[in-house]
Amino acid sequence: MKIIIEKDFDAMSETTKNILLGHMSQDKRVNLSITAGNTPVGVYQRLVEVVKDSPNYGNVHYYNFDEIPVPDQAEGVTITDLRKLYLNPANIASENIHPLTVENYTEQDQRLAFAGGLDAMLIGLGGDGHFCGNMPVTTKFENYTYKVKVRGDEPWFDPTMMEVGMECVTMGPASVMKVKHLILIVNGEKKAEMVKNVLQGPVTEAYPASILQLHPNLTVVLDEAAASQLAK
Amino acid sequence: MKIIIEKDFDAMSETTKNILLGHMSQDKRVNLSITAGNTPVGVYQRLVEVVKDSPNYGNVHYYNFDEIPVPDQAEGVTITDLRKLYLNPANIASENIHPLTVENYTEQDQRLAFAGGLDAMLIGLGGDGHFCGNMPVTTKFENYTYKVKVRGDEPWFDPTMMEVGMECVTMGPASVMKVKHLILIVNGEKKAEMVKNVLQGPVTEAYPASILQLHPNLTVVLDEAAASQLAK
Amino acid sequence: MKIIIEKDFDAMSETTKNILLGHMSQDKRVNLSITAGNTPVGVYQRLVEVVKDSPNYGNVHYYNFDEIPVPDQAEGVTITDLRKLYLNPANIASENIHPLTVENYTEQDQRLAFAGGLDAMLIGLGGDGHFCGNMPVTTKFENYTYKVKVRGDEPWFDPTMMEVGMECVTMGPASVMKVKHLILIVNGEKKAEMVKNVLQGPVTEAYPASILQLHPNLTVVLDEAAASQLAK
Amino acid sequence: MKIIIEKDFDAMSETTKNILLGHMSQDKRVNLSITAGNTPVGVYQRLVEVVKDSPNYGNVHYYNFDEIPVPDQAEGVTITDLRKLYLNPANIASENIHPLTVENYTEQDQRLAFAGGLDAMLIGLGGDGHFCGNMPVTTKFENYTYKVKVRGDEPWFDPTMMEVGMECVTMGPASVMKVKHLILIVNGEKKAEMVKNVLQGPVTEAYPASILQLHPNLTVVLDEAAASQLAK
Repeated sequence: MKIIIEKDFDAMSETTKNILLGHMSQDKRVNLSITAGNTPVGVYQRLVEVVKDSPNYGNVHYYNFDEIPVPDQAEGVTITDLRKLYLNPANIASENIHPLTVENYTEQDQRLAFAGGLDAMLIGLGGDGHFCGNMPVTTKFENYTYKVKVRGDEPWFDPTMMEVGMECVTMGPASVMKVKHLILIVNGEKKAEMVKNVLQGPVTEAYPASILQLHPNLTVVLDEAAASQLAK
Repeated sequence: MKIIIEKDFDAMSETTKNILLGHMSQDKRVNLSITAGNTPVGVYQRLVEVVKDSPNYGNVHYYNFDEIPVPDQAEGVTITDLRKLYLNPANIASENIHPLTVENYTEQDQRLAFAGGLDAMLIGLGGDGHFCGNMPVTTKFENYTYKVKVRGDEPWFDPTMMEVGMECVTMGPASVMKVKHLILIVNGEKKAEMVKNVLQGPVTEAYPASILQLHPNLTVVLDEAAASQLAK
Repeated sequence: MKIIIEKDFDAMSETTKNILLGHMSQDKRVNLSITAGNTPVGVYQRLVEVVKDSPNYGNVHYYNFDEIPVPDQAEGVTITDLRKLYLNPANIASENIHPLTVENYTEQDQRLAFAGGLDAMLIGLGGDGHFCGNMPVTTKFENYTYKVKVRGDEPWFDPTMMEVGMECVTMGPASVMKVKHLILIVNGEKKAEMVKNVLQGPVTEAYPASILQLHPNLTVVLDEAAASQLAK
Repeated sequence: MKIIIEKDFDAMSETTKNILLGHMSQDKRVNLSITAGNTPVGVYQRLVEVVKDSPNYGNVHYYNFDEIPVPDQAEGVTITDLRKLYLNPANIASENIHPLTVENYTEQDQRLAFAGGLDAMLIGLGGDGHFCGNMPVTTKFENYTYKVKVRGDEPWFDPTMMEVGMECVTMGPASVMKVKHLILIVNGEKKAEMVKNVLQGPVTEAYPASILQLHPNLTVVLDEAAASQLAK
């Protein structure tokens, strides 16, 4: 594990953008899986400036790694957010976007294998220790891409986004271990204790992201606040 | 995970030899870590025939992945066994042999990183679910190469090989996850239930080898007896 | 470049089969490009024994690297030969076979890039120094997959297989350099001088295979006769 | 080959810095070979800001790829320039710097192989089509690291830097092909015609850098002036 600690959110975003561009600038098909949410907003703002209308990055293909469907809406929460934050402003061609959905999730691992695997995955850390859709209680380390049926009694159940009985999908820990380079970004003091737990504590399904300690090529980019509880 | 089931011990050994030769025949420095014990005996017999006095495999470097020191003896149990089974009969040059010892174990992970990492590791499975020296009770998934001080109350304590207070070393799960290709070989009906447990059961420190399910490039070679309890 | 010299045709074939099996036994999609002709006959005989009716190698995909169409025949010389020698007797599933044809050759390089690239290519050496369909006179080192229109005055023009104006296709030197591992097999005294020319002489389009000296991971497997003129 | 065209020298430098940081930010030993001269000055200025006094890049090792010794001076032209431009201002630890010299050049290729190979090499383009010390007249594509004895009649003979009979060393084309990722940077209208020659013309020893067309993972970063003669 390589931990890069940057001064603040902007520096964290800049460094992360650079790491992604390093992959994207190679002379090969590059498969990226990227995260939705608030943490990567600064990364995508910077990346859009480089990628938008550039002829240089047509070799890059994008995959979401989890999805929560929305009733009466063609696409789910994650891909909708990714389109808004990055894919639309960067003008990514639709043939370079490969949505994971509740309908096609059983093919995700083979689809990725057939495309040469994921070169890099950008992920965030949940305040409860989750990564991708690998949540406390419902995560088993041995899982590949899988479906979770929400029961309503999970500690992370959020009635504003979910309802009982709904089904979400996510790449599981076994899928994520096959990614060639993992980039985990975290900012803010609120997550500092969980950063310590998952990076320096025991590997346990109670904090699913603790399994990332075992990834063979993990780069963690933190701002100083998120890193504030790490042991030296 | 890719599971190859062969008819018997000989076929398992032949296939495993071929996988190793595939690595060894490349035009680069190849770093191999190989297992002692009974399971690989047929592999090494076949490999010696190919490698002995051959000018073709000088690019291959060998590493043991665990060690149990022996009082009043210059070298430990593992490297002694490897010398007898393979390194001596194959006439491997001493500069291509890199022993892990109780003295140098803290440098093992960096030493491997500096040599470009391990290309392949050949491992066996213990009847109690251990791999390398990662034993039930003393294994933590987050460990890199580490030292175990034997207390005498471990379920695997074997007074014929060990004494209370002795110290053994092993590459830990985090070290093993960095190997580019893992080859796990198991034969015999006695281990069939444990094969099922570690390959198809939950990932748990109770059976340390269950973590191997998460390795991004794991090939398992079994004889039919060892595979007899696997679910299809 | 790594040169492995074996006693005879059988030993050359056995070693080459093992190198291929090393690739095929990994836990990932494996893309192989393999050669037609007489040299690999022993390799394929051995490989068929392992692969036929085996559940273990469904992850392997096959590509021919050149093609000569045959009038009034659905498929060309190369793929027809590969089906006879290996693909049919080994019962390879049709979805794992990806023919290169005169019709689809402009898509070959991108098709391979989209499948993660070729993991290995098995090639032979022509008595005139050609490899794949990269022949003296018509080869330019900078070529990717390209079409050759036969004029009839080429030194290699063979009226029993070709006619003036016919079009053949081949992966070019630039395509072949992108293969992760190249395996060149040659047997017999007749080719000994050309082996020396292409492996130990200057890199020149006069002997197209001389460019293979620059491949980053080239394994050459020779029988003693083919190796007889190599400088030590 | 992937060609990235940036507006000007600053944008070229920024993009190149990002590509290098992408490599440097991985969780592994990273071996870089970097170029001296004027072209990379902007790259190094930006890189120094990131690397200087950072705890994050101790995993990166540096190698020069050619050297011209200077009479009565402990170190040669290239490493002296690299120290001034980057290694000193970035405070790179001496154990992470691995000079190539006229004395140790015969060990360069094996030394690199033993360290796992070069992950990336940053190179420039000479106005005469040279790269590294691979100059017109003295370059043979089949060369690994080699020594050139200057005769004085070479087209590039420069009496201000050289004298007849002096010996220079350089990694040759065969060495450079083993680098995992090549980054070629060129700026300025003066080199526009040579950029076209080496990237879109025939592969020929007359313009040594034309061989780079065959590298399996080449990224070219140009400013608009340097790209101005490229065919679309």
